[in-house]
Amino acid sequence: MSFQRVAIIGLGLLGGSTGLAVAEHLPGIATAGYDADPETRRRAGERGLVGTVCDSAADAVRDADLVIFCVPVGAMSAAAAEIAGALKPGAVVSDVGSSKESVAKALAEALPGAAIIPAHPVAGTENSGPDAGFASLFRNRWCIVTPPEGAEPEHVTAVSDFWTALGANVEVMTPQHHDLVLAVTSHLPHLIAYTIVGTASDLEGVTQSEVIKYSAGGFRDFTRIAASDPTMWRDVFLSNKDAVLEMLQRFTEDLTALQRAIRVGDGQQLFDHFTRTRAIRRSIIEQGQDDARPDFGRSDHNGG
Amino acid sequence: MSFQRVAIIGLGLLGGSTGLAVAEHLPGIATAGYDADPETRRRAGERGLVGTVCDSAADAVRDADLVIFCVPVGAMSAAAAEIAGALKPGAVVSDVGSSKESVAKALAEALPGAAIIPAHPVAGTENSGPDAGFASLFRNRWCIVTPPEGAEPEHVTAVSDFWTALGANVEVMTPQHHDLVLAVTSHLPHLIAYTIVGTASDLEGVTQSEVIKYSAGGFRDFTRIAASDPTMWRDVFLSNKDAVLEMLQRFTEDLTALQRAIRVGDGQQLFDHFTRTRAIRRSIIEQGQDDARPDFGRSDHNGG
Repeated sequence: MSFQRVAIIGLGLLGGSTGLAVAEHLPGIATAGYDADPETRRRAGERGLVGTVCDSAADAVRDADLVIFCVPVGAMSAAAAEIAGALKPGAVVSDVGSSKESVAKALAEALPGAAIIPAHPVAGTENSGPDAGFASLFRNRWCIVTPPEGAEPEHVTAVSDFWTALGANVEVMTPQHHDLVLAVTSHLPHLIAYTIVGTASDLEGVTQSEVIKYSAGGFRDFTRIAASDPTMWRDVFLSNKDAVLEMLQRFTEDLTALQRAIRVGDGQQLFDHFTRTRAIRRSIIEQGQDDARPDFGRSDHNGG
Repeated sequence: MSFQRVAIIGLGLLGGSTGLAVAEHLPGIATAGYDADPETRRRAGERGLVGTVCDSAADAVRDADLVIFCVPVGAMSAAAAEIAGALKPGAVVSDVGSSKESVAKALAEALPGAAIIPAHPVAGTENSGPDAGFASLFRNRWCIVTPPEGAEPEHVTAVSDFWTALGANVEVMTPQHHDLVLAVTSHLPHLIAYTIVGTASDLEGVTQSEVIKYSAGGFRDFTRIAASDPTMWRDVFLSNKDAVLEMLQRFTEDLTALQRAIRVGDGQQLFDHFTRTRAIRRSIIEQGQDDARPDFGRSDHNGG
């Protein structure tokens, strides 16, 4: 099976990029979209994020054979309920949420009997909203498809092929394993970045202007991901609570060990740890998941 | 006063970049250099990092009116002792170390009576060694000069003018304040990044290849600074122990508060915190300390 009409619910960074990527890579597919915010709908129309911007979610999905929810994880349930009566029989329902077990549950409850194949393109930038999307967002990025037990293989293949066509590399895994992997590669890093940026802005001995001025010493790398959409990330942490808390526990243990090494002056332990972490960076560069140029090729006047 | 002959001790990223920047911006100044590693000296000669590569530190500094130590903070004392007998009367001694109170003390003890004006150009990349340096490293970056009490104003001005000529913006502050500011803008971020990269590589439920594969979700931003030189960073943490432990304490408190908010499901607290941290990112972009393009302008095929 392949899709002829795709509905995109939520027209922010991910929804908008999906619409633009379909127009570029799958021009034979018609797209319709909806966003709960009227101003976002207006901008989506101006930018042409989807072929047709509809005034209700039900209108957007009426003829679709693939519906993709691109709303914060905590809003999936309500968004799915809105289309329950309008979904075409046989349509496949998917999403782009950053946690998968809770989303799978929310969609299954709101749309009993529907063919639900959740997915998560591991791609994004620190920007959000209808102006943030671009067609190449998914190129050479991974998209993780997490079918529920008993899913039709044909549906899994169709959703996988869709993301492959948009430029992504697809992997299939269980929602549980996805949530564990993403807790460490994405959720924990965001939580840590949000924390340290908050810590730095609350100091009494160092002014905020000093923090900003000398941020090239390392701090600024954290501020990029700490500028990500607050609603989306609130929902991620609440919906993937167990895995995030588990990773946080391990992180805190490791940090305490390094803290102790500093306190007692154990230079060898610090050196050994810092040497080990270099190898991981090398692998990420080799596998094309980051830019090898110093500072990711930040332009000269900003580099350093 | 202005300098005619500059000696650079240590020819890695910082020393090499300093030599190249002098050649570009102050071609009237002669540079000599030394590195304890023979292979680094050989590469420095091939790349022309300094005008003359010498076979001992004493030879390099003999005619210099400015000596700059570009070695790890923990190696300053021994490096200074090596040149104690060869230093020209009236020469100014400086360095590029990332912590300043301990370096000022080490240099003063090894070189009693010398004019010591420590400095710290807040610039660097994740690469190290004699192949890592480039002439524009200091352009539009801050350089913090930390004169000891009673320093000759003429010497402070001369060191400041030197860094200004290499493209940096100079600020003067006490070593104590420097160490506090850098603990939060640089040392704590590096410690956190080293920790999380270590945590991620030690999991039993998630393979290292999965961590690398899905690193674009946020993790990869941490790996860049966790690839920095292990010796340099071991020394930074040991030499700025008090300020680093103080910042770490605050960070841990803030992280515990967010952890609790996740555990009890307090979405409002998470949302409020994540909204506040966005403003800091905006200020860093506005002040030219980072690149506003999504992902810092990582090229399309690597962006995401």
